[in-house]
This record gives sequence, structure tokens and C-alpha cells, in this order.
Amino acid sequence: MTYCIGMRPKAGLVIISDTRTNAGIDNISTYNKLHILADDADRLIICASAGSLSVTQAMLSMLAEGLDPQSEDTSIRTVATMPTMFRVAQLVGEALANARRDIARTLHGTGINAEVSLLLGGRVGEGPLMLYLVYSEGNFIECQPDSPFAQIGELKYGKPILDRALQWDSTLNEAVKVGLLSFDSTMRSNLSVGLPFDLIVVPADRSEPIIRRRIMENDAYFTQLSADWGRLINESLQQITDPPFMTLD
Amino acid sequence: MTYCIGMRPKAGLVIISDTRTNAGIDNISTYNKLHILADDADRLIICASAGSLSVTQAMLSMLAEGLDPQSEDTSIRTVATMPTMFRVAQLVGEALANARRDIARTLHGTGINAEVSLLLGGRVGEGPLMLYLVYSEGNFIECQPDSPFAQIGELKYGKPILDRALQWDSTLNEAVKVGLLSFDSTMRSNLSVGLPFDLIVVPADRSEPIIRRRIMENDAYFTQLSADWGRLINESLQQITDPPFMTLD
Repeated sequence: MTYCIGMRPKAGLVIISDTRTNAGIDNISTYNKLHILADDADRLIICASAGSLSVTQAMLSMLAEGLDPQSEDTSIRTVATMPTMFRVAQLVGEALANARRDIARTLHGTGINAEVSLLLGGRVGEGPLMLYLVYSEGNFIECQPDSPFAQIGELKYGKPILDRALQWDSTLNEAVKVGLLSFDSTMRSNLSVGLPFDLIVVPADRSEPIIRRRIMENDAYFTQLSADWGRLINESLQQITDPPFMTLD
Repeated sequence: MTYCIGMRPKAGLVIISDTRTNAGIDNISTYNKLHILADDADRLIICASAGSLSVTQAMLSMLAEGLDPQSEDTSIRTVATMPTMFRVAQLVGEALANARRDIARTLHGTGINAEVSLLLGGRVGEGPLMLYLVYSEGNFIECQPDSPFAQIGELKYGKPILDRALQWDSTLNEAVKVGLLSFDSTMRSNLSVGLPFDLIVVPADRSEPIIRRRIMENDAYFTQLSADWGRLINESLQQITDPPFMTLD
């Protein structure tokens, strides 16, 4: 299993992904699920994946080689040549649908799952930062201010804290903290999600630096965050009024 | 879907269940899932159910009629005649397995699920308060101090708060608050879990009263609890140190 969060508050874009893959409980390894599809002066395109590793890798290879031209007069299509993030999302969706179709055919009847979902974020040229959730079938939805996050993989344990604490006007510091707390909740409940995490922060303000970091096991900040949160949750609980129906007068 | 929590801190037993059933998104009704199987001077036995309603009702009818005697010299077996909570759990498990087997046979090939899981709590005679999680197959596990709660139904959204804030030495007031917060997290994320909730609190101290309550929609305390918790979570987030890697010096 996997867990990845994409957050798109006004201040920028944050994507966090775990790195654990497993084929059964005794076959666990670390694998980078945060893929940089383009990174140059014109564009930054980041993709996080959950689901079948073979489909994901086939999709990434197709995107690297480029997809066939749409007519005889044009050249092969890559994320580097698409004029907008919307077109990038269409291209990535097309590659994913192709990869899934190819592999699902060989897996037919085996019961092995060829589903993949993606978080696709970034910007092209002078366009705004965008975040998409791409489904196995290649269709996608855009993350919007009312609910400025998207999740893929093992998402239920970590959703309540995002629902409660991430807003459109959250700062990037707040978004990173909420994201790490969401991972902390998930890790405690599901062994197939684990450290290290990969994190990328892209400020909407282009004068601010992009931050990339791998948060390793025993990371001092993450350990402290988890311990502090446990203490704060229990202190908060003490501040909640006791249920009036618990005392019979 | 359903969500039910059973909590068994040192101070007693708390069971909370929602009342929403659905057969598709447009066929939703209110149904009591918290069943009192026995309530007299000698014993109190409570059962909360998640899963197939027809299997649950068949099981309850079998328990009400009594299960066949184990030999010719004995009488039919009911929860009222079992000498301990362990024997009650065995009987309930047997009834559940029988009901499921009967109904699963008629459902074979339809794709309709006949799974049911139960929380079974209470006490018999001078015995201690017990809480069991009973599976569809009729086998069961006992809730123990290391992790003094059990959940059935749509359990992932509401698990992190229980992991963080419910301990063996939690008071009954704390347990009820944590349980209601767990429901609040679940309701926000899954429409198939909803008010009203049924709640029963059985203090370990027999001199204290048993509390039963249905928490209705627009309950003033629950509304306040949810709002206060949202505020406290956001205040707590401000108290967490900002990530050190977010500033490049």
C-alpha cells in the first residue's frame, strides 16, 4: 500500500509520499513514488503514484519515450512539449490508461490488481500551480479551494486531520505540519505505510525557494511532532466539556 | 454502512452505535443496531452489529428462540442460561455462524454480502465486565487493556483519535468524549454513518447508574463538542514547532 497527499493552498503546492512498497507482508522495500517529470526554467511537473508498480513504471517509460504524434505533421508528445498543465494532465492520463490496458490484459484472470492513481502537480510557463488527481482510467479532477487537498492510497486514517485543519488560506508551514500529522495517523494504523517520506514544497511566490526533502526514519522533527501532537490531543480532550447526560442529578 | 465502537477502560464499558442503514444511496433508514439481549438483576448483555441486516435479524431471532440443546438431557440454550460472558459469546457466535450459513447459501452467486461483525459487551452474575469482537464465522476476540477498544463497520476514519486518546485508565467521561469525537471524524468523511447515535455506559462500579441515551440530530452537546474540537485542533496546530527545513538560512 501507499499513502500520498497533495495540498494546494493559496500559498503553493505541497506533495508528500511514503516510500514503502510491498508484495505481501514479507516482501517490503523502499521505492521512490515521487517522480519529477520535468524540472527546468519553464516548467516543474511532479507525479506521485499509488497502486500497481509495474503499471506505474510502464507509464513513466511511455512518458519518457513520448507518446505517438496525433497526426503525421506533428512530433511525439512529451510533458516537455505540452503548453499547459491541463494538457500535461491529459497526456499523463493517456499514458496511464495505455499502460494499464496493456498490463491488465496479461493479468486477466489472475486477480492481480492493475489499478493506479496519481497526484499530478506543478506549473507550466506563466501558468498557475495546479494539482490533479488522476484515476486509473486516465480521467482526472482538479483540486480546488473548497477542499484544497487530494489523497491517494490508504487515505481514510489520515483524512480527518486534513478535513479539520487544512484550508485555502493555510500557510505552507501549516500545510506541511498537517500533512505530516496525517501521515503519522496513517502509519500508526497501517503497517504498509512507513518512513522515509518524500516531500516537495513549491511556493506560489516564484521568488521563494522550492524545498525537497526526504524525511528519514528517526527524523528528530517528525518524532517530536508526533509526541507533541499526542500531548496536545490529550490536553485538548481535557478542555472539552464533559457530557451533560453522564451525571444524573 | 455502520460504525460502532466498544470501549472497555478500567472504569467500565461504553458502546456507541450509529443508526443509519442503507441499501444504496437512495434507500436510507434509521435502525437500532444496539440490541439489549438480557437486562435483569443477574446479567446485562449488549450487542452492536455491523453488516447484513437480514443475517443480524436472523441471529437475533435464533437467540430469542434459543439454540438446540447440546444433548437430550439438557434444555434449549439462551443468553439467559449461560453461566459466564465467555459462554454467552460462544452462543452468540454459534447463532451468528448458523444465520450466516443459512442466508449465504441463498445469496450464493448474487454478489450480496452476508458478513456481519458484532461488539458483544456486558456481565453475568459476579463476573467482570467483558467486551468481545465477534466475527462473521462466529469466532471472537476479547478486548484487553493494551488497546481497550474495538470497532466494527466503517472504522478507519475514527481510529486515530482512539489510538491517541483512549487508555486503560481513561475515565468514563473521557471515553464518551473520545468515542463521540471518533464518530464526528467518521461522519464528516462518510455519509453512510450518521446521527442519531445510541449510547450505553455501564460503570464497573455497580453502585453507579447505567446510562442509556439516544443522541439525536442537532443535539446541542454533540454540536458544541464538534465545534470545540475543530477550534482546539487548530490551536494545537499553532503550538507545533514549524518544520526546520522550511527555512533556508
